[in-house]
Amino acid sequence: MTEEKIREFLRRYKAGSLDEEETAAAIRKFSFEDMGFAAVDHSREERQGIAEVIYAAGKTKEQTLKIMKSLIAGSDKNIMATRADGETYEFVKKELPQAQYDDEARIIYVERENKILDEENRIAIVTAGTSDLPVAKEAWRTATLLGNAADLFCDCGVAGIHRLFNRLDALQKANAVIVVAGMEGALASVVGGLIKAPIIAVPTSVGYGASFGGVSALLSMLNSCAAGVATVNIDNGFGAAVMAHKINLLAKKKQ
Amino acid sequence: MTEEKIREFLRRYKAGSLDEEETAAAIRKFSFEDMGFAAVDHSREERQGIAEVIYAAGKTKEQTLKIMKSLIAGSDKNIMATRADGETYEFVKKELPQAQYDDEARIIYVERENKILDEENRIAIVTAGTSDLPVAKEAWRTATLLGNAADLFCDCGVAGIHRLFNRLDALQKANAVIVVAGMEGALASVVGGLIKAPIIAVPTSVGYGASFGGVSALLSMLNSCAAGVATVNIDNGFGAAVMAHKINLLAKKKQ
Amino acid sequence: MTEEKIREFLRRYKAGSLDEEETAAAIRKFSFEDMGFAAVDHSREERQGIAEVIYAAGKTKEQTLKIMKSLIAGSDKNIMATRADGETYEFVKKELPQAQYDDEARIIYVERENKILDEENRIAIVTAGTSDLPVAKEAWRTATLLGNAADLFCDCGVAGIHRLFNRLDALQKANAVIVVAGMEGALASVVGGLIKAPIIAVPTSVGYGASFGGVSALLSMLNSCAAGVATVNIDNGFGAAVMAHKINLLAKKKQ
Amino acid sequence: MTEEKIREFLRRYKAGSLDEEETAAAIRKFSFEDMGFAAVDHSREERQGIAEVIYAAGKTKEQTLKIMKSLIAGSDKNIMATRADGETYEFVKKELPQAQYDDEARIIYVERENKILDEENRIAIVTAGTSDLPVAKEAWRTATLLGNAADLFCDCGVAGIHRLFNRLDALQKANAVIVVAGMEGALASVVGGLIKAPIIAVPTSVGYGASFGGVSALLSMLNSCAAGVATVNIDNGFGAAVMAHKINLLAKKKQ
Amino acid sequence: MTEEKIREFLRRYKAGSLDEEETAAAIRKFSFEDMGFAAVDHSREERQGIAEVIYAAGKTKEQTLKIMKSLIAGSDKNIMATRADGETYEFVKKELPQAQYDDEARIIYVERENKILDEENRIAIVTAGTSDLPVAKEAWRTATLLGNAADLFCDCGVAGIHRLFNRLDALQKANAVIVVAGMEGALASVVGGLIKAPIIAVPTSVGYGASFGGVSALLSMLNSCAAGVATVNIDNGFGAAVMAHKINLLAKKKQ
Amino acid sequence: MTEEKIREFLRRYKAGSLDEEETAAAIRKFSFEDMGFAAVDHSREERQGIAEVIYAAGKTKEQTLKIMKSLIAGSDKNIMATRADGETYEFVKKELPQAQYDDEARIIYVERENKILDEENRIAIVTAGTSDLPVAKEAWRTATLLGNAADLFCDCGVAGIHRLFNRLDALQKANAVIVVAGMEGALASVVGGLIKAPIIAVPTSVGYGASFGGVSALLSMLNSCAAGVATVNIDNGFGAAVMAHKINLLAKKKQ
Amino acid sequence: MTEEKIREFLRRYKAGSLDEEETAAAIRKFSFEDMGFAAVDHSREERQGIAEVIYAAGKTKEQTLKIMKSLIAGSDKNIMATRADGETYEFVKKELPQAQYDDEARIIYVERENKILDEENRIAIVTAGTSDLPVAKEAWRTATLLGNAADLFCDCGVAGIHRLFNRLDALQKANAVIVVAGMEGALASVVGGLIKAPIIAVPTSVGYGASFGGVSALLSMLNSCAAGVATVNIDNGFGAAVMAHKINLLAKKKQ
Amino acid sequence: MTEEKIREFLRRYKAGSLDEEETAAAIRKFSFEDMGFAAVDHSREERQGIAEVIYAAGKTKEQTLKIMKSLIAGSDKNIMATRADGETYEFVKKELPQAQYDDEARIIYVERENKILDEENRIAIVTAGTSDLPVAKEAWRTATLLGNAADLFCDCGVAGIHRLFNRLDALQKANAVIVVAGMEGALASVVGGLIKAPIIAVPTSVGYGASFGGVSALLSMLNSCAAGVATVNIDNGFGAAVMAHKINLLAKKKQ
Repeated sequence: MTEEKIREFLRRYKAGSLDEEETAAAIRKFSFEDMGFAAVDHSREERQGIAEVIYAAGKTKEQTLKIMKSLIAGSDKNIMATRADGETYEFVKKELPQAQYDDEARIIYVERENKILDEENRIAIVTAGTSDLPVAKEAWRTATLLGNAADLFCDCGVAGIHRLFNRLDALQKANAVIVVAGMEGALASVVGGLIKAPIIAVPTSVGYGASFGGVSALLSMLNSCAAGVATVNIDNGFGAAVMAHKINLLAKKKQ
Repeated sequence: MTEEKIREFLRRYKAGSLDEEETAAAIRKFSFEDMGFAAVDHSREERQGIAEVIYAAGKTKEQTLKIMKSLIAGSDKNIMATRADGETYEFVKKELPQAQYDDEARIIYVERENKILDEENRIAIVTAGTSDLPVAKEAWRTATLLGNAADLFCDCGVAGIHRLFNRLDALQKANAVIVVAGMEGALASVVGGLIKAPIIAVPTSVGYGASFGGVSALLSMLNSCAAGVATVNIDNGFGAAVMAHKINLLAKKKQ
Repeated sequence: MTEEKIREFLRRYKAGSLDEEETAAAIRKFSFEDMGFAAVDHSREERQGIAEVIYAAGKTKEQTLKIMKSLIAGSDKNIMATRADGETYEFVKKELPQAQYDDEARIIYVERENKILDEENRIAIVTAGTSDLPVAKEAWRTATLLGNAADLFCDCGVAGIHRLFNRLDALQKANAVIVVAGMEGALASVVGGLIKAPIIAVPTSVGYGASFGGVSALLSMLNSCAAGVATVNIDNGFGAAVMAHKINLLAKKKQ
Repeated sequence: MTEEKIREFLRRYKAGSLDEEETAAAIRKFSFEDMGFAAVDHSREERQGIAEVIYAAGKTKEQTLKIMKSLIAGSDKNIMATRADGETYEFVKKELPQAQYDDEARIIYVERENKILDEENRIAIVTAGTSDLPVAKEAWRTATLLGNAADLFCDCGVAGIHRLFNRLDALQKANAVIVVAGMEGALASVVGGLIKAPIIAVPTSVGYGASFGGVSALLSMLNSCAAGVATVNIDNGFGAAVMAHKINLLAKKKQ
Repeated sequence: MTEEKIREFLRRYKAGSLDEEETAAAIRKFSFEDMGFAAVDHSREERQGIAEVIYAAGKTKEQTLKIMKSLIAGSDKNIMATRADGETYEFVKKELPQAQYDDEARIIYVERENKILDEENRIAIVTAGTSDLPVAKEAWRTATLLGNAADLFCDCGVAGIHRLFNRLDALQKANAVIVVAGMEGALASVVGGLIKAPIIAVPTSVGYGASFGGVSALLSMLNSCAAGVATVNIDNGFGAAVMAHKINLLAKKKQ
Repeated sequence: MTEEKIREFLRRYKAGSLDEEETAAAIRKFSFEDMGFAAVDHSREERQGIAEVIYAAGKTKEQTLKIMKSLIAGSDKNIMATRADGETYEFVKKELPQAQYDDEARIIYVERENKILDEENRIAIVTAGTSDLPVAKEAWRTATLLGNAADLFCDCGVAGIHRLFNRLDALQKANAVIVVAGMEGALASVVGGLIKAPIIAVPTSVGYGASFGGVSALLSMLNSCAAGVATVNIDNGFGAAVMAHKINLLAKKKQ
Repeated sequence: MTEEKIREFLRRYKAGSLDEEETAAAIRKFSFEDMGFAAVDHSREERQGIAEVIYAAGKTKEQTLKIMKSLIAGSDKNIMATRADGETYEFVKKELPQAQYDDEARIIYVERENKILDEENRIAIVTAGTSDLPVAKEAWRTATLLGNAADLFCDCGVAGIHRLFNRLDALQKANAVIVVAGMEGALASVVGGLIKAPIIAVPTSVGYGASFGGVSALLSMLNSCAAGVATVNIDNGFGAAVMAHKINLLAKKKQ
Repeated sequence: MTEEKIREFLRRYKAGSLDEEETAAAIRKFSFEDMGFAAVDHSREERQGIAEVIYAAGKTKEQTLKIMKSLIAGSDKNIMATRADGETYEFVKKELPQAQYDDEARIIYVERENKILDEENRIAIVTAGTSDLPVAKEAWRTATLLGNAADLFCDCGVAGIHRLFNRLDALQKANAVIVVAGMEGALASVVGGLIKAPIIAVPTSVGYGASFGGVSALLSMLNSCAAGVATVNIDNGFGAAVMAHKINLLAKKKQ
């Protein structure tokens, strides 16, 4: 938020057209920090329910560090940078020793609140194969850092479908189920045919040849014959977790 | 469910390896009617939370009618056939005079319970343009037949973004928001940046040339820079509504 | 086979460089009838194991009729024309009253040997939905006309996977299983994970939007996580049946 | 298979609803080992006819080793890991000195039964060019480890089609023929026009420009004008060999 | 050519900077008739070796007629309009009774010189199937109207490759060979491996499913493992004939 | 703009936080009419410089008529509906007799100001062929209705490039040049190499086979080796004209 | 321009068919330097308004250096080589010590005129995210070297749309606005709905999975529901800047 | 050619059914050397007019060397291996010191006949830009090694079209013209509109973003509005040269 805008709200407040609460809300809602190369969005949580998360791919490590610092200063929530490599983490850690790194999930994070608010309301994550694990871990780490109880069930692909049936009871209890699968992505439809919770499907780039970097799984999931399945981008464990978090939150709130 | 299978459960019940409740549950869970050209899934609601819905495209009108009758016999819920043309409706109506037709949504339905259970928990549907209306209506009709309170806001595309801002308050109150947009599909990201509820994005085939029958909007939605957006197939208003229904149900249940 | 070529073989026979058997085999192997617009391949059965089948799409009805007559004259097997419309059938029937038409499968055929040679060795065909039926019928009709015992199980898609489990025993007994599915085509992988027979997957153009006319199902099947699955072209029930026939024949021969 | 499930079967056995044979079969059929990052499918051979094979791509070398050990413990068959690089082999070899590596085929394997059961029933593999050799070797190694007699004929592409004709007699004798070709993949159709055995076509990523990493060959094979050709994924020598093995097995069994 | 330009050349001629021959050549080279909706290129033959040919698709029948008249007035060669439907022909015929129509090739033409200049120098056209005939006829008609001796061999596809071998001698004698094939388009490579003449490959849209309207054949032809094959657009029989004509002309000229 | 919003502005005006001018501007800027199926954007000209234009494709003729009436009531500018068919025009004309129809351009329009403001500042439109004319006419009609002097030069494709050179002088004088071309779309690059004005390239769907409905021309234009070329959607003559209008306006304003 | 051509113009000049001014103009207009591997276009500024710019990708560093020298010799403008890596810069700098390198924009340049001619007429560049910065810098550096006043506003993506609203006033004042965005590219449409200036949209390859290297953003921009948006190639900051420069120049000239 | 086949011909010769000439011809026509990993085609020149050329990509350097040796032993023509890297050359050179390397064209060759047979009959190669040079060099080196007089004109792209006009006279004299262009590939159509010789268009992978590795140029060339243009694979300078050689040969022969 620019100086000018803040002053405009203050003048309106003084003139009486905005009361104190309205003024504070407006400033909270539209605040951001202009760093030249970035405009850190300090009001994202106010608007969207979760704070800004850094997409580290395509950013220099200096940029990632500076934005992390800005976010730390502007909020008291957990801070994350996704798609971050180990080198960036080493760089960040020097100035932010409290930063941690999940190298499977490729997430740098600063954990400031560690409590899982509600063990009853859970998110389940299920993968088709072991090779899908990094994406599933990105989803699990994100969900956990956002305060959700989350379970990860690995390697339940349809080539051995009895492995899925063994986990069905656990899946049935979740408020939202994230299905992570590459190759033909059939798992999403099969799970969709068996449980009641909303399903978020994450295609992965696992596969070769005509998997076209995840396109095959993506199309499978979009064309699922089971209703109640929605899809996010290829390898987007983070996005699936945010969607699941919002659904889980809704269940929690309503209690 | 085949005769043989039913008998197997009964024998186990008699032998004592299944008790009465288990036997009934098993039969409920795996029952279907084999009609030769179709195997009507009478246990879908038990498993997935909503009853089987007929996808009328590619079926003859005789097939659609017979499956509708089987569903009516097997359940007391609202019955729907999506992607149905007027000719099929005329054919169905002769034998099922209680059937109704939403010609914008292309849904034939038999309404048997008409109560919206809960006015507090709502689904919002918002379209980018007037041409997206048929898909939005498919979503609205489906959501309503599944018992949800649902609102439809039309023509809020980003070419005149103030029209969206005027509806933001209403959107903010919904448990789930369905965004229906063709062409470049930018609306999903913009809404995603402004509200807290989970968003289900429906790309439509509205557009021409490089919209490639909805691919442009689909890719936009999958690549949304706003988290908390998940996508369904092009023109799949039905699927979006089922996803929203499951989310809304979660909120309702938890109260 | 041109006159000149036939004469060359005869001369060699006379000269003693080919014996009687060799000469007859050579003529059988390379014979065809040049009709100007077509070169009817009378030696295809000799080489490939099944006689030439007419692909009627893109041919005039006059051309289809003339090729049928040539095939009837050159062989004593069942004769088929695939992808034929009703109008072509009406035209053909006038001159070939023994011709029959399977309008679901869109096959015109002249049945000359009606015996299913071997009830023990069977082909199974399973579809995901009712809308996949025309393609499955093309496979079933082809398999039957080639002399195979064939069973068709309809509507076993993964949205209600228990319907598949009820047919597993029958599928297990087949020498080859043809899986016909549109949309996300997940059924092929699921069947592939459960049975021992070789599986021929047929993607169908059933679906809309991101099914891209069968591409989604095709990619799923090519990327199947279950091994022992091979795929034919979209909607190619005919090709799947020929592949299954050759496999089934192998089992029969070996007895 | 979870402890709980095993106990359920045992209780049923004790209660008399399952006899001894049924109990053993059920346990065999649904057994797997949960390793956290993987659920090793020890019942795959029981269900599909061949044991689980490790797809090493995307797995860490530690994961590959652990799964190999689990498979060795759970079966007495040959064990394979496909798409494995040399580094993984070096790592595996330290703990499993009996492991061998086919670096052309990129397969790590532990050979425990080395007998080719039946020299009469053979699989033939034919390549269009020398550059297709790694994929053909993957097929050959897989077929051989599964106990098949297999022959590999290299460099028979249609640019010099007489090279194919010289191998036709050998191809004619096989129960299944695997055709491996990149670029335009024409070889599959040509072979398909000349022999009676079922043909499994493997497109390879050999080529450049508009070969699009194997798409050109893949489309050729899917659109083959010769019937009796089915296709697997690009570069999927492994899958083709499993399909051929199942066909060959069928011929062997029937003897 | 505009009046102004013509006058400029005349002035230069008068001023002596261009001599008579140069002036006439320049006017011939750059002349066209501006009809508002079209600028008929009367100098195309001078520059490219063949006169302008009308592409009738997307033009009204009035436009096609007017351009035909302009071309007739501006040249004494054969005049053609490709991709013309029967209705356009009926319209044209009223004012140009000398116009003829090849309905297979969809070409309207006015034949003004009917001599095939040179029977020794021939173009050969070979098709894979009967369904490719319309495209082959477009090539044949074009080649003939341009004054070439041309032969058409139909239905020589690789599913019955002996049919091709029977025509090899004739193909060997041509100066240029046009191969017309849909589906997998393998014929181009096979012919390319067997003859010395330059080969022009024409993919056709014959096929279905993964033939993608001719893309499969197009890619095959572009990736031909046989050198000496060049490709034109899908269904572009006309363009192939012009290329063959230019090659044939070269051979003729050099005598 | 909702009643509520208007009242809010009025209250602020009364309270003195907005002065009269600010209040009027705000209302002008954010006004729209909510018609249920559409939200007509009466402030688009205020924001974007041109009034809302109706995209009639996918709208019913009743919807098109109602939106036209709303636009007529809300502005005194020329009103347009693009992509409108003749039937819609007949329907509209009954209630709006002043409506006119350009059937080549498929635009229904109500002309209320007919003056071309400035003959000096011109837009040039050039097409590659006669078949591109409908798209060029859409551009020309739009440009003219927006008050620009516009010239249309037809059939200047590179197959006869001298036709382009004859129009170069006229093109050089324009403030913006719209190049309309299908097939390979080479004209955009050629013009881009020869003139100084900014060029707006419009690919058209003219062509067949590998033109893929305009994709070939689109890619050509996006990859133009000449700088100063920007591209709009396939067949989007309207969009090109708006872009050219904005550029032309800039030149006019600055005088 | 070849010696021969120059001599022809001189002879015409002597003969009086060209006057002095015409002769000089013709030589200026068609002059180039033939370096064997390159034909440096010294007349490009005369024709297109901006001098030739070197596209360094795919050129050796020796080639880049030689062309830079030729351009320096042939003009007194700023010289640029785009898509140049640091190694090429080091090589160039040895012989051209005055060369500078913008490593974010990857442009080597020799600045010879450093004046921004006109502060009033500005170009604005706005990016969706920080990762889009390299492309935006390419646009900014190009615009500046061409003599334009240019402003760069970073990280205004629609996930936090208030950041855009804070920069709207600045954007409104520009003669042309360049919007640089990856992922779903929604920013172009949103800006297009809010300002009057012509907009040049630059899709970037920022993103992953279904962004397909910028295709998602490209399609979004081509399908923008806001008119007055034209698009350049993915990551083509240079081309956008040239287009904006031409528009800005038009405004400047007209003053 | 197998021993067995050779013996068969000999036996027929002895038996008198083949005379001496026929026997020699048959052996020449079908001879090849079976090296296990390769079947070197020693009869290719006999059939296709040019000897086998090694495609080194995907072959080991040992394989490339062995095939080169086999070709040297089997023929007295120039020997080539295309797509060969420097490392392979170093390896080959050790055993074949007479081998040479064109590192721009990436061709290893052994020159055994160095005479350009006929300076009158020439091939012309023209490129759009300097970055297209490696592909053009592959064409030039191939054409020269096949005995053609060939000229290379570089950097004549349409952004500075006068550079092309300066070379038109030279292009006009060639029997075949190879046009090498990346990006939008417009040069092929422009040349096609200006000269009479057959044109072979080679799209290159030069470009970025929406050039899609040469697809943009490929589509342009396939859709050329100028007739008499045929296209080869992306970056296939070799194939273009072979096509041009066959055309040139035809002209030479006919003298």
